[in-house]
Amino acid sequence: MTKFSEAYRYSAETIAVGSELLLGGRSDSNSLFIAERLAGIGIEVRFKTIVGDQESDIAAVLNQACRRAGLVVMTGGLGPTVDDCTREAVAAVTGRRLVRRKEAFEGMKTRLAQWGRTPNRAQLRQALVPTGAIVLSNPVGSAPGFALTWRGAQIVVLPGVPSEMGAMMEQSVIPLARARLEQSKGSGPQPVTRMVFHTWGLPEAEVDRQLQGLITTRTPVALGLLASPTGVLVSLTTRAERPAKGGILLRTAEGVRTRLREWLYAEGQETMEEVVGRLLVEQQCTIAVAESCTGGLISHRLTQVPGASAYVDRGAICYSNKAKTDMLGVPGSLIERHGAVSREVAQAMAKGMRERAGVSVALSVTGIAGPGGATETKPVGLVYVGLDGEAGKPITKEFRFHGDRSVIKQRSSQAALDLLRRWLLERRHV
Amino acid sequence: MTKFSEAYRYSAETIAVGSELLLGGRSDSNSLFIAERLAGIGIEVRFKTIVGDQESDIAAVLNQACRRAGLVVMTGGLGPTVDDCTREAVAAVTGRRLVRRKEAFEGMKTRLAQWGRTPNRAQLRQALVPTGAIVLSNPVGSAPGFALTWRGAQIVVLPGVPSEMGAMMEQSVIPLARARLEQSKGSGPQPVTRMVFHTWGLPEAEVDRQLQGLITTRTPVALGLLASPTGVLVSLTTRAERPAKGGILLRTAEGVRTRLREWLYAEGQETMEEVVGRLLVEQQCTIAVAESCTGGLISHRLTQVPGASAYVDRGAICYSNKAKTDMLGVPGSLIERHGAVSREVAQAMAKGMRERAGVSVALSVTGIAGPGGATETKPVGLVYVGLDGEAGKPITKEFRFHGDRSVIKQRSSQAALDLLRRWLLERRHV
Repeated sequence: MTKFSEAYRYSAETIAVGSELLLGGRSDSNSLFIAERLAGIGIEVRFKTIVGDQESDIAAVLNQACRRAGLVVMTGGLGPTVDDCTREAVAAVTGRRLVRRKEAFEGMKTRLAQWGRTPNRAQLRQALVPTGAIVLSNPVGSAPGFALTWRGAQIVVLPGVPSEMGAMMEQSVIPLARARLEQSKGSGPQPVTRMVFHTWGLPEAEVDRQLQGLITTRTPVALGLLASPTGVLVSLTTRAERPAKGGILLRTAEGVRTRLREWLYAEGQETMEEVVGRLLVEQQCTIAVAESCTGGLISHRLTQVPGASAYVDRGAICYSNKAKTDMLGVPGSLIERHGAVSREVAQAMAKGMRERAGVSVALSVTGIAGPGGATETKPVGLVYVGLDGEAGKPITKEFRFHGDRSVIKQRSSQAALDLLRRWLLERRHV
Repeated sequence: MTKFSEAYRYSAETIAVGSELLLGGRSDSNSLFIAERLAGIGIEVRFKTIVGDQESDIAAVLNQACRRAGLVVMTGGLGPTVDDCTREAVAAVTGRRLVRRKEAFEGMKTRLAQWGRTPNRAQLRQALVPTGAIVLSNPVGSAPGFALTWRGAQIVVLPGVPSEMGAMMEQSVIPLARARLEQSKGSGPQPVTRMVFHTWGLPEAEVDRQLQGLITTRTPVALGLLASPTGVLVSLTTRAERPAKGGILLRTAEGVRTRLREWLYAEGQETMEEVVGRLLVEQQCTIAVAESCTGGLISHRLTQVPGASAYVDRGAICYSNKAKTDMLGVPGSLIERHGAVSREVAQAMAKGMRERAGVSVALSVTGIAGPGGATETKPVGLVYVGLDGEAGKPITKEFRFHGDRSVIKQRSSQAALDLLRRWLLERRHV
């Protein structure tokens, strides 16, 4: 595996400001978005820093970032309250004064007027911008952002609200960064190209083993593996080229596909629920889901996809045994004989769901998510997944998952959706 | 609002290593956990950095962190593959050699043997530790961690897998950090005390207005606000004291409670679903949920709480109109007259669910999550929530939410659970 060891003249850093990002309240998702968008136009984010609301700490981080990077994107700390001091820190580092800018104030006033409000005194602070900076209008919220150049580094400051930050990245930051790339044309960096593959069903060490030898020390492609409750993510990253037919990146990607074919369920940004949704639409299938231990997670995931109402008919969450009988017609005697967590009950749940809903295919899950509920023969993590389709034999599968309640729910939902995916693929080839 | 402006002799930084954390794959949750745990024993995390797998970048960040902080906790980059180079970076910065340590190797061998495996050649690298470091055993996975002191800073290196990192924080890092605090007793910092309040139903600017004047420039308590799809989080942070009766922190907290009483649903780590679960258990109520646009999210949230099977009986996800009739007995004529997204249908869904399940209370949601499905009179974000209880009048509420599909689902689920919470509180007082 090769590391990119050249130095980039034009790399970026992100700085997320907010004490809540340091201590528990919230994780920083803005920086991930910014890095993805910048990578798409050939700018690599090499460092991300998170810092609290203390002005001197923000200033220290900004100072450091400007020495390393050509572009520094800051988010957060632009609100109307006194603990928002990003603009003060930027002014201090760059030696600029903060002045109220007409275009900043007007934009804010217009936005608030749309909501039937007028700026209050605290909000007036949000129109303060360092001298020499350009104002970046906020198409979603009231706080404007700004951009300035200092000692060769471009500093961009955006609000921390993800929807505002996202809109301003598209509207202002990407065009600014592109313009700068244009200026340095010829000597500018190649775009970073990254391909991502999502696998389910193999442990990380096994994925690693399957890929052994695919990349040699001379391949200018970096391979990354990342394990999570919903599977192992495989990434290929290169700066060597734009993806082109016959190129090394696409050849390596083909290698990943061949070696992991059996476990690969999606590429790029696509999620399992999107893949399944696409296949359901393609085959004009409808679906219903009967859930016990996953408690609604499978239906929730299926309905995250816009347009899901075209194929999701209904779902039943049968936590109690009585609900399994009432809603799905699972015989009480079957539950008594085999227990609610059993292959037989999973199968009866899927069958009952499909028949009652009149759909093409039904999924079912029953298991022990823990921490309570285990018996001598049935440990926490024992999960049965069932599928009943209008064609073909019914399927049930047994799993023994590790992890806490939340992880077991996640893994169970992934196992069920993957079973559906395989059934849909097979059906297509019949 | 006061900022903590004193300098701390003993603050900490986190460094999360992994290119996947820079570019899209995954957000860094380890640093949040580490900051919480350290805050609990009086050590403040002031900076968090995320860096890729490039050795020179890791070294640069570590160097910088050791100059600012007394404790540096690194996670990730300890795996068996060649792109894992955290140990090399630490060795380079501190000028130590990497040597294979018996205790590191033995621990790994023992762990792998439990899984019926032996270390392969790549895994042998994981037993390499800088000279002079102590080995931190890994009670969950195979890769050991290590700790060493360099130029007055304590450097701790842990694997990136959250469960392994978490176990090693408890087992090794907290005791190490405590020991160091003991040594500097008297001059050591006070624990950071933080209180968190969760509100629902008021926009951030309104929460801010309600709290105006609560904290003056002389109050040694910092106030923070953070908006999210599930409400506004209010935090109070102080170093001035341990929470004591009559102390400033608790007096300020009382002020927050009084001013936000109507919107405050939880404090600390408690979630809405835990609050509701606690009240359901307390009042020996059972619940069933009928969901349309939330697609299972409410049931999923309710069943995230261990022990939820004591009160969650069942859920119905009625995406199609036919499902609303089949599963809940909502008359087709009612849907035809008022539309599936209407106050009347929400009410009929809750009533049908409660009667069929025979539970104490039923919740329902019907709405337009978007992006499709809007009509001239019914925009995306129009949501009706219903509640039908064994006592009292049925309730329905109309909401007009903004945001994308996922945000509207989240807000709708929060609105429904909050309605249930208020109903349970009222019931308690009858």
